[in-house]
Amino acid sequence: VSNRQIVIAQIPDGPIGVDHFVACDAVIPAPGPGEVLCRTILVSLDPVNRGLMRGGGDYRGGLGPGDVMAGFGIAEVIDAGDTGWVPGALVLAETGWQQYAAVPAGALSAVGPQRPLSHALSALGVSGMTAWFGLHEIGRPVAGETVVVSAAAGATGHVAGQLARLTGCRTVGIVGSPAKAEALRELGFDACVVRDEPRVLRARLREACPDGIDVYFDSVGGGVLDACLALMRRHGRVVCCGTLSAYDSEPPPGPRGVPGLVISKRLRLEGFVVLDHRDRWPAAQQQIADWVADGRLTVLEEIDDGLHAAPQAFVDVLAGANLGKRMVRVAPNP
Amino acid sequence: VSNRQIVIAQIPDGPIGVDHFVACDAVIPAPGPGEVLCRTILVSLDPVNRGLMRGGGDYRGGLGPGDVMAGFGIAEVIDAGDTGWVPGALVLAETGWQQYAAVPAGALSAVGPQRPLSHALSALGVSGMTAWFGLHEIGRPVAGETVVVSAAAGATGHVAGQLARLTGCRTVGIVGSPAKAEALRELGFDACVVRDEPRVLRARLREACPDGIDVYFDSVGGGVLDACLALMRRHGRVVCCGTLSAYDSEPPPGPRGVPGLVISKRLRLEGFVVLDHRDRWPAAQQQIADWVADGRLTVLEEIDDGLHAAPQAFVDVLAGANLGKRMVRVAPNP
Repeated sequence: VSNRQIVIAQIPDGPIGVDHFVACDAVIPAPGPGEVLCRTILVSLDPVNRGLMRGGGDYRGGLGPGDVMAGFGIAEVIDAGDTGWVPGALVLAETGWQQYAAVPAGALSAVGPQRPLSHALSALGVSGMTAWFGLHEIGRPVAGETVVVSAAAGATGHVAGQLARLTGCRTVGIVGSPAKAEALRELGFDACVVRDEPRVLRARLREACPDGIDVYFDSVGGGVLDACLALMRRHGRVVCCGTLSAYDSEPPPGPRGVPGLVISKRLRLEGFVVLDHRDRWPAAQQQIADWVADGRLTVLEEIDDGLHAAPQAFVDVLAGANLGKRMVRVAPNP
Repeated sequence: VSNRQIVIAQIPDGPIGVDHFVACDAVIPAPGPGEVLCRTILVSLDPVNRGLMRGGGDYRGGLGPGDVMAGFGIAEVIDAGDTGWVPGALVLAETGWQQYAAVPAGALSAVGPQRPLSHALSALGVSGMTAWFGLHEIGRPVAGETVVVSAAAGATGHVAGQLARLTGCRTVGIVGSPAKAEALRELGFDACVVRDEPRVLRARLREACPDGIDVYFDSVGGGVLDACLALMRRHGRVVCCGTLSAYDSEPPPGPRGVPGLVISKRLRLEGFVVLDHRDRWPAAQQQIADWVADGRLTVLEEIDDGLHAAPQAFVDVLAGANLGKRMVRVAPNP
């Protein structure tokens, strides 16, 4: 039995493609002291990980050719060594794109009781927690305010928008296609506009947000951010969550509304990294799980089958060709 | 007796010059119901007022050819009508660049007891209050942190930097010339760097801020903001106070570090307008006055003599040729 892996073949010079990855077989690692051998079940595809293929972001290390592509996953403990974990336990782990990974025991966390299992990577995982803490900690909307969410059909966006609705806000999504707009209206978004160049987008948003924007949940940056800044209300808040417009291309120009509109409109732009709030995830997870259970929050997921599907799925996610959380199934649920 | 005025002759198409203004004589206005006739003593020169000559900013109306140039000033009440003010009272008023103005009584406020009178326009006026509320409300530095102030030799900057020092912060100024740097070091700034293109500026700042920047008090925007963003520490705060780089030229590109660095460094960028905090000015004014009286805070002022000097002085201020608060004396102190 070998360990199938997807390895970075080369660092992209332009937009990412499947040829930047290669599949190979390695030996199953023997866990070192304090490590746990895990078998990967599901791997999360996060666009932000594209940044690791450029030499790394500010808060995580970079990756180069020959490295297993990074990814967070759900795994089963196979060999717990002397760590206190139990074989058969289901854990969240930085498995990477491979069938087996030896992971430091301290970096594992237990998967909660909620099912389906995949929710632990979507609405109850980093994506959902990003929506929760970005919206409630940074954006802090109150009932009656207008919340705009970009990449609204994405893993984080569709949850953030539903949370805004559940807070009593008018919720407007910015999406990449009419089909996504329709899907989000079915989830209760008050309106959706299709992304376009800033001037067109601004006109569409103005129609969808006649009173202006109180909270803009920004996962895109660039021209989309600029279009929203122009429509912010006084004392509005911008949740700086992601820079999708920069992950797989030349970074776009900075928003011209900074700092001029930030001053005249008394805005607050604030960034955050959801892992900083980890001690407070459980309460948020419980609330989301309750809302999922009683049907008030719908979780959108797309699960591709087989580790070999990961490169194309990742390329798709970076091109916005996903509705909700995209994952790859590496092994069946135990 | 006539009312000498400086009027806008034409809206600048490029950088402002003295030819965009013209002096003329009007009749002294008769105060209408609820108005007070004031005689101007000192007029404040605020670079932000350049924005009024483009059709106006977001929070004040615009000015066109034939309008008296706007400016806040210290004035003496000449005819109080039925308003309750007393002739001879010294007031703060939106006098504009003219010897006499009829001002709604409700828009006047009394000048405090501190002297010299000019401090009511500088450290105890909008400039000083902007420094205080920007630093303490938005930046919120604590002792031991590093605070960087741009336009540090300006009316607001030299006060903001001294307030940061009085809070126990390492304080670094960004200025336009070595002479200004020297002047600020005499006021207690720990270091000063001379403004330059972003890459050079960043290198100078890195040397002056070996631990990074906790609070950046930004009155400039553009490349200076971008250079500072690169050096911000985690959870740093940017006080969005002004956009000097945009007042008298084409607005510079937006900062490329927004939103990428805002996210990875967990920054907060926040704008404010000091007039919003007006109810809390008195306490701040008292503290500043006490520090001025006991020599812990030095107020830099430059006062040009005569209303005719206003256009050149304003052009100078927009070019950064001022050390501290620049004003024009229209009449001697009573």
